[in-house]
Amino acid sequence: MYAISLLSDFGLKDAYVAEMKGVILSISPQAIIVDISHEIDKFNIRMGAFILASAAQFFPQNTVHVAVVDPGVGTKRRPIIVETNRSFYVGPDNGLLILAAQKEKIINVYQITNQKYNLSSVSKTFHGRDIFAPTAAYLVKGLNPSSFGPLIDDYVVPTYSKSTIKNGELIGEVLHIDDFGNIISNILIENFSTAGIYEGNLLSVKIDKKTLNLYFRSAYGEVKTGNPVALFDSSSFLEISVNQGNASKLFKTKIGDSLRVSRMIKS
Amino acid sequence: MYAISLLSDFGLKDAYVAEMKGVILSISPQAIIVDISHEIDKFNIRMGAFILASAAQFFPQNTVHVAVVDPGVGTKRRPIIVETNRSFYVGPDNGLLILAAQKEKIINVYQITNQKYNLSSVSKTFHGRDIFAPTAAYLVKGLNPSSFGPLIDDYVVPTYSKSTIKNGELIGEVLHIDDFGNIISNILIENFSTAGIYEGNLLSVKIDKKTLNLYFRSAYGEVKTGNPVALFDSSSFLEISVNQGNASKLFKTKIGDSLRVSRMIKS
Amino acid sequence: MYAISLLSDFGLKDAYVAEMKGVILSISPQAIIVDISHEIDKFNIRMGAFILASAAQFFPQNTVHVAVVDPGVGTKRRPIIVETNRSFYVGPDNGLLILAAQKEKIINVYQITNQKYNLSSVSKTFHGRDIFAPTAAYLVKGLNPSSFGPLIDDYVVPTYSKSTIKNGELIGEVLHIDDFGNIISNILIENFSTAGIYEGNLLSVKIDKKTLNLYFRSAYGEVKTGNPVALFDSSSFLEISVNQGNASKLFKTKIGDSLRVSRMIKS
Repeated sequence: MYAISLLSDFGLKDAYVAEMKGVILSISPQAIIVDISHEIDKFNIRMGAFILASAAQFFPQNTVHVAVVDPGVGTKRRPIIVETNRSFYVGPDNGLLILAAQKEKIINVYQITNQKYNLSSVSKTFHGRDIFAPTAAYLVKGLNPSSFGPLIDDYVVPTYSKSTIKNGELIGEVLHIDDFGNIISNILIENFSTAGIYEGNLLSVKIDKKTLNLYFRSAYGEVKTGNPVALFDSSSFLEISVNQGNASKLFKTKIGDSLRVSRMIKS
Repeated sequence: MYAISLLSDFGLKDAYVAEMKGVILSISPQAIIVDISHEIDKFNIRMGAFILASAAQFFPQNTVHVAVVDPGVGTKRRPIIVETNRSFYVGPDNGLLILAAQKEKIINVYQITNQKYNLSSVSKTFHGRDIFAPTAAYLVKGLNPSSFGPLIDDYVVPTYSKSTIKNGELIGEVLHIDDFGNIISNILIENFSTAGIYEGNLLSVKIDKKTLNLYFRSAYGEVKTGNPVALFDSSSFLEISVNQGNASKLFKTKIGDSLRVSRMIKS
Repeated sequence: MYAISLLSDFGLKDAYVAEMKGVILSISPQAIIVDISHEIDKFNIRMGAFILASAAQFFPQNTVHVAVVDPGVGTKRRPIIVETNRSFYVGPDNGLLILAAQKEKIINVYQITNQKYNLSSVSKTFHGRDIFAPTAAYLVKGLNPSSFGPLIDDYVVPTYSKSTIKNGELIGEVLHIDDFGNIISNILIENFSTAGIYEGNLLSVKIDKKTLNLYFRSAYGEVKTGNPVALFDSSSFLEISVNQGNASKLFKTKIGDSLRVSRMIKS
């Protein structure tokens, strides 16, 4: 299996993504290249980390994931390879790769220093093409990650806030708003049981300053078209949605907004 | 040949499409995955059906087409496989697959009930990843469609309006507006001959409330840059275009608008 | 190696790109198809030529590049194959292919006239699917380019303006604005040495009517976040950027704007 996934904030208009693919195929013609997303908000490492961590777990063993959201390109930030028990991650040492790698088991992290496996001329503006793409292409061919440089243990580990419970109220934040306008939070399914909230309960949901009452269900279609609903998404995060509508417009929300959930006691 | 096509309303920002691809490659590493479109308007089954029917006929024999525009995910709507004389279609039983399948010859329709070929845990929000992707991956490996569940014959057949002729006037509607702003209608090339309209004729075209006179030609470049033109598109539907311009802006039109065409008699 | 790249102004919403891929895979099931971009501005041959020329050089030997920005489709403009010392280019004879081909060495240019290798029915609106895609699929299978039609030598060669130097001032224009808002000009790295401008110099940069002073550096991160910077991009063109910001918004610029650069002499 020779799968390489690509994630970036490059967009799809320019030649950048294709340049990376050309470099990969020149080194490893049998690589199967799969795009995860190139529509990460520019320079938004956290969003890139979230999308990468969502997708990577569904890929085959030994997939090499290349991710490039890289405001520090050409500066002292290091290019790295993260080796886990089931995948490789290649990209900048800015936290982008670690959320996904932590869902597996991190075995080793290497700094990429060996110029032998870079493009012959390395720019200071496009390491995706000049360093990360060729590294992935050689990894997928079976080159040992230790060939690229030394082990390091001081790589950047991002700290993302976790949800809390206070007086029966779950307090979290908006992690992501998807293309449907679904609001994805950092509240997990096990937090609900801890708080004594069960399917069918009526909830009070406050996002930033706006509060709405809505039901906790398991499918969008279990409320009427146009109605809001709380459910757990396909990655076990609490998601606030509108059946066939757009929850982020209803709540006028943005990533990072606070989100509070409690169970309504019918009086 | 191991081609799987994918169509959805997921957009390209999120991890959803990549999760489906990861699932497919985990089961069927040799699958050749081709995106048809992931920019179908959200929940717009009719638009998805139109795009799928346009593209599918150009794919190789035995291609497995997976299409997910699925507002009823997690409810009672059934997951199905449509087997035609040249392809398989996998997706929700909401009409999305049938327009394309009807251009071929429908042999059998199966309800997917056998959980053996689903992901181990099936969410109620993402059957694209949990049911349709693995089904396609096993089909492309050669598993018989009858392995997935029972034959059904009460699947949803969508009814799309056909154009009519009344007093020499062709009456149809706007099927699709493409990314160039070309207006694609449900009037077919044979309707023109029936109505006695031939290449070179000057036409009166009324879309919703706006009427313009324009020529029936065979190529965009046969009218001056910026001028409107009527021609038959590469799928034999009547298309109203502007040479190097945007017809949908000129007519201020939207999908579903009525469209009336008649031949101008020069006096 | 069986790589085919695709570039167009079709966008990703419609079925057009997938129809081309279906045609290619029907003829050449082993083709590895890579998208360069389908977000070229509609009918913008120059932008298409620039993106194609940026990406093509990174692809493997013998890649077949198919490019379709084709306002003249269905008229007298000819379909052509450009054979260089390392690649094939397939598309319309309107200048689109030549900028990329000139970075290699043009060996032969053929007009595609042999209908045997077209789709059985050729529309006048979609040569990408009906002529260019099947031509690429047969080329990648090893068919000799002379099989498609006669040699020609009067193909369209676009003339793009070059930058000049006058009294120590470099005068060029805006070639491209990328998805980050980076402003890419036609001033090359060797023009800077000729003008006596070196890394670390403070520059006066005037784009259209707006002038700013900014430093010539080698990486975005060498100026503070939000500050403008001049550097040479990964293709050796002068690029005006804002570290983690959007230079085209700062300068309110568009493609084709004049751009003047001179060295500030500190007094």
